[in-house]
Amino acid sequence: MSSSYGNLFKITTFGESHGAGIGVVVDGVPSGMDISLEDIQKELDRRRPGQSLMTTKRKEDDKVEILSGVFEGKTTGAPIGMLIRNRDADSSKYDKIKHLYRPGHADYTYHHKYALRDHRGGGRSSGRETACRVAAGAIALKFLESKGIFIKAATTQIQDVLAKQWKEDEIENNPVRTADPDVADEMAERVKSAMAEGDSVGGVVECRVYGCPVGLGEPLYDKLDAMLAKAMFSIGTVRGLTFGNGFDSAGLKGSENNDAMDENGFLSNRCGGILGGLSNGMPIVMNMAIKATASVARYQKTQSVDGESSDLRVEGRHDPCICPRAVPVVEAMAALTVADAYLLACTQDPKLSSGNT
Amino acid sequence: MSSSYGNLFKITTFGESHGAGIGVVVDGVPSGMDISLEDIQKELDRRRPGQSLMTTKRKEDDKVEILSGVFEGKTTGAPIGMLIRNRDADSSKYDKIKHLYRPGHADYTYHHKYALRDHRGGGRSSGRETACRVAAGAIALKFLESKGIFIKAATTQIQDVLAKQWKEDEIENNPVRTADPDVADEMAERVKSAMAEGDSVGGVVECRVYGCPVGLGEPLYDKLDAMLAKAMFSIGTVRGLTFGNGFDSAGLKGSENNDAMDENGFLSNRCGGILGGLSNGMPIVMNMAIKATASVARYQKTQSVDGESSDLRVEGRHDPCICPRAVPVVEAMAALTVADAYLLACTQDPKLSSGNT
Amino acid sequence: MSSSYGNLFKITTFGESHGAGIGVVVDGVPSGMDISLEDIQKELDRRRPGQSLMTTKRKEDDKVEILSGVFEGKTTGAPIGMLIRNRDADSSKYDKIKHLYRPGHADYTYHHKYALRDHRGGGRSSGRETACRVAAGAIALKFLESKGIFIKAATTQIQDVLAKQWKEDEIENNPVRTADPDVADEMAERVKSAMAEGDSVGGVVECRVYGCPVGLGEPLYDKLDAMLAKAMFSIGTVRGLTFGNGFDSAGLKGSENNDAMDENGFLSNRCGGILGGLSNGMPIVMNMAIKATASVARYQKTQSVDGESSDLRVEGRHDPCICPRAVPVVEAMAALTVADAYLLACTQDPKLSSGNT
Amino acid sequence: MSSSYGNLFKITTFGESHGAGIGVVVDGVPSGMDISLEDIQKELDRRRPGQSLMTTKRKEDDKVEILSGVFEGKTTGAPIGMLIRNRDADSSKYDKIKHLYRPGHADYTYHHKYALRDHRGGGRSSGRETACRVAAGAIALKFLESKGIFIKAATTQIQDVLAKQWKEDEIENNPVRTADPDVADEMAERVKSAMAEGDSVGGVVECRVYGCPVGLGEPLYDKLDAMLAKAMFSIGTVRGLTFGNGFDSAGLKGSENNDAMDENGFLSNRCGGILGGLSNGMPIVMNMAIKATASVARYQKTQSVDGESSDLRVEGRHDPCICPRAVPVVEAMAALTVADAYLLACTQDPKLSSGNT
Repeated sequence: MSSSYGNLFKITTFGESHGAGIGVVVDGVPSGMDISLEDIQKELDRRRPGQSLMTTKRKEDDKVEILSGVFEGKTTGAPIGMLIRNRDADSSKYDKIKHLYRPGHADYTYHHKYALRDHRGGGRSSGRETACRVAAGAIALKFLESKGIFIKAATTQIQDVLAKQWKEDEIENNPVRTADPDVADEMAERVKSAMAEGDSVGGVVECRVYGCPVGLGEPLYDKLDAMLAKAMFSIGTVRGLTFGNGFDSAGLKGSENNDAMDENGFLSNRCGGILGGLSNGMPIVMNMAIKATASVARYQKTQSVDGESSDLRVEGRHDPCICPRAVPVVEAMAALTVADAYLLACTQDPKLSSGNT
Repeated sequence: MSSSYGNLFKITTFGESHGAGIGVVVDGVPSGMDISLEDIQKELDRRRPGQSLMTTKRKEDDKVEILSGVFEGKTTGAPIGMLIRNRDADSSKYDKIKHLYRPGHADYTYHHKYALRDHRGGGRSSGRETACRVAAGAIALKFLESKGIFIKAATTQIQDVLAKQWKEDEIENNPVRTADPDVADEMAERVKSAMAEGDSVGGVVECRVYGCPVGLGEPLYDKLDAMLAKAMFSIGTVRGLTFGNGFDSAGLKGSENNDAMDENGFLSNRCGGILGGLSNGMPIVMNMAIKATASVARYQKTQSVDGESSDLRVEGRHDPCICPRAVPVVEAMAALTVADAYLLACTQDPKLSSGNT
Repeated sequence: MSSSYGNLFKITTFGESHGAGIGVVVDGVPSGMDISLEDIQKELDRRRPGQSLMTTKRKEDDKVEILSGVFEGKTTGAPIGMLIRNRDADSSKYDKIKHLYRPGHADYTYHHKYALRDHRGGGRSSGRETACRVAAGAIALKFLESKGIFIKAATTQIQDVLAKQWKEDEIENNPVRTADPDVADEMAERVKSAMAEGDSVGGVVECRVYGCPVGLGEPLYDKLDAMLAKAMFSIGTVRGLTFGNGFDSAGLKGSENNDAMDENGFLSNRCGGILGGLSNGMPIVMNMAIKATASVARYQKTQSVDGESSDLRVEGRHDPCICPRAVPVVEAMAALTVADAYLLACTQDPKLSSGNT
Repeated sequence: MSSSYGNLFKITTFGESHGAGIGVVVDGVPSGMDISLEDIQKELDRRRPGQSLMTTKRKEDDKVEILSGVFEGKTTGAPIGMLIRNRDADSSKYDKIKHLYRPGHADYTYHHKYALRDHRGGGRSSGRETACRVAAGAIALKFLESKGIFIKAATTQIQDVLAKQWKEDEIENNPVRTADPDVADEMAERVKSAMAEGDSVGGVVECRVYGCPVGLGEPLYDKLDAMLAKAMFSIGTVRGLTFGNGFDSAGLKGSENNDAMDENGFLSNRCGGILGGLSNGMPIVMNMAIKATASVARYQKTQSVDGESSDLRVEGRHDPCICPRAVPVVEAMAALTVADAYLLACTQDPKLSSGNT
């Protein structure tokens, strides 16, 4: 497996859904940065299960312990190890379906690749691992904040309901984490309706990065969009990604699609803040298609580990729509990527600095 | 910059649009593989400029020289160095606009990052570099072929014209490289019409990978989709990417979106061949939004390097639609990524082998 | 910092001498391998402090907890997280010298690089981190054992006393871990004598790797000797390294230094098992110069963080000679390196396999 | 194979001894740096064959062509591609021994790893590749010079003749490149004497790095000594390496070995300029054991590719002692490593900068 992400601002995660716990090592964090347990816990609380009726009922308080790398409230430059113990892991529901590949899950592919697997709650392939990303991302967000860079994500679509506005102050005020308060209730209805049917729904999450200096990204193969794309598709539920006007650009002419400039800078942001693989100073705008949670309490046809046909109904506690909890995960992965790009850019551009003094 | 791509099957490219030449080093190719100059040249010929009325009139025969790594017609395991000399580089058109940032190009961002730049034809940021990818990709395609893996890309949209069928045998029979012969002429009309206006058009390219064994991809951070996404967005013109049903999945319920199975395998391929970040044995299906060529012979507002407002009209020889030439580039990047994933998987799965004997 | 080691068989460590604990994530371990807590603990017990009169009196039982990656006694392919809590950290001795740079330690250099540091017991630069390497190395040793590869290290010199024989069965029978029982007592005397003076002594550790298949190592830059050299010099106390006849080769002619062959293979092993950067099937033989422990209870001249001259006497509990405890650390780093080289070689050589089935 | 070296200041080489040519791509060079063909050629001239009676008679002028990355005399930040054509490759001498493994060479190990090999002049394993390192190293030396860092290597031993002084101005004044003019003739005699016998001799090369700022190196696994060790052992002829007092430290007590300090800094440099894996501001001092050239015109016993015993006499043109030509290669690898460490340190320490403006 490959459990590390990043080049200079780098994370390594470990842990399974139903094992002893999950954890992350964050390496490359510049020294001298203020960091508190609260900085990290508050982000984890946005991702943790059981925070609303709309999320899985698994009860994990997701309390994080910082094991290293912080001394007297400041980062020392040493790797920051963090641990979250698993509490409410109930494997019983999984025992009776352990011989069946759950549709939409990694069961089939992991079993073929590794020849055995920890079936309890998806094991390593569980979304539970994303808590590690959020914990690490909280440190990246703190670092970026000190450079004037801020990241906001929100749900912009659930099933057929689309957001029409982007009001960042509203995001945390509704359980679906949309930036459009006018459609928040309708989105919530779609989730509840799916839940009532033992089903789930998909959606779209948008992420914006503000305040990037010009020039983050390392062409030609570690372009900022390429790095962000890898980050986003490393999230299990992402099926599509666009920057700026995305697929709409396919229908446009060059004269319609280019972002013109004048003496004050860019006159539009169709490119979504990245030009030639480098940040251009405009907000970075990404949209991610999020598939519906694969675990549904409805009968589906599947295959057993012995290659036989079977029917399966996934019990257990699952999110009817993962978008609200995906929002902090998307922010975390964006933050880790931009922090990494920032450090990489420091090696070329003397105007940037990691700023440990 | 970061001019290398891949972990084990790895390329490093160099060269600018109007410099002495461009080249690539391909490292990690298993030894004992048959490879000829023709294997590589034939792919380059699919990408080279001037191949039809629909492409730039720059005359580059793109003849490649193999400098190393092949002995008596076989790969030796040593790095394969290849060089393509630039022939028809005409920098005169660029000299008079060298103080202006061309809209939609990397001029502005490169200038800010590197404090100086080779303005001739875009220098390093030019699409000309993709010839190196195609040359390297030809070797990857050859390697994959020996494992029963095949890759095909085609244009599926130009401006508002959408392909409705996928006939692979037709792709090379029309200048837009679409797999739908019924819309090939209409697509070509859109390109010619844009060309007549001094403009350009965007489109969509689809790529399919057939024959992947189950289990390619290294979760959680080098998942096959994450690796492919990085590859695709490293191509300058890609603005969006989907796997399988992509953004349509956002509107579906879990019960509608999951791919069920029976004793014969998967009953559908909505996921696009990748499940939990690993190939699942079904064809991998990706779609890429390709923006219109940024260079247009129409006046656009822009900024000069001194920060002043200006009008700009990009002369020179440019592709009115890059999709037809993007097709082999997409195939090459897909091939390099899958070959890399294959070698990585060999380290885990004894059923796979690089097969140098 | 860079807290990760290895390409495919990869470790990431965290933790400080006097923090909450230390830990390691081992990634890339093939699935299906038997591994027990005892396999790991028994190696840690060989490294832990307080095991004899000859080692520091700090009392750490170094009990390891496996947090992930092992399911029903077998590796799953997922990253193996391990944690060792710090128990007997006594920071009081360090508080009064926290403004002084201890000679021979990383205090001065860390303070200048990171602008602040965790002074307690050396913080991140403490040799305590090597417990993580030993825990990870135990897994690598287990993997290598399944391939018929075995690693043995021993003390071959302490101060002026040199071993003259190599009896592997004797290594664990004496507190200095020498393979020459005839000089074990004399070596121990040197250590006790230094201890009595509040001083320390240096020595040499030799390491041998048996059973390597021909062809491990990735020329030209990840040659097996280059990889092993990086591994050995990542151990804080190593000041010199040789392969085979090492510096003696400087005095020899080519005809004297080459290892001739006949139909049965090599007739000598002056090269120390590595030829052209690849294992040649003969035992790999390395020797490492180990400097005396820097912490001595004798007055030394030093500088304060304010740049003033000062006298310093390092109290606390320190090893009078680190060689006996360096032995398992050397074995661990050798094992991690050879395991990594083995996996890398699998990607080229179909005769090798990771063997997860 | 692994043909790349470095993390941020990174090289990738290709080419064989008797192929079309050899080349290197240098990536990560900060933009805005002055670089001329002469800067590179003058270093290559120090390494090239045929420069004195003491070196191989193969006639290669080793004229380098810069293919990319330099525009109007300055680096652009883009990868710098360089090519050296092979001219005087005479493969005839190798054809008649192509079925025999030359003792001391990589023939046996390459043949087993890659199942086939380019036997002409050693193919990829030939020392000829080091010209690429020297070309790339010239750029690194130029970069370091701009930061006040200078590197000097010299021969300090040939067979039994040891240098007793270090006069840098004398190094280029004698054909063995020793810094001790008093023993230069005696060293040269040893080389001539071996040559007359159809034999070769080994020696020692010392390398010093001056002017390093405090704090280069990334603990715990990319410590500066670990990175330099990897670099040095990637050179085919290096069999041993020490920093500072090296193996002498094994015989010393801690109180004798530590470098004390006062208000002016370090009072000695036994550690050789690296403390805790970081540069400490003192000169870095390394010594490398260089084995005698393996190719000797004397009969040696060996094995054929069919596993039979045979006698072999290596004809062709070989260096009777590689030390003089190893000097610029050692400097190049040291320069590449320190440049890489410098860029890595920029990401942590705002006092450092790549300085592209």
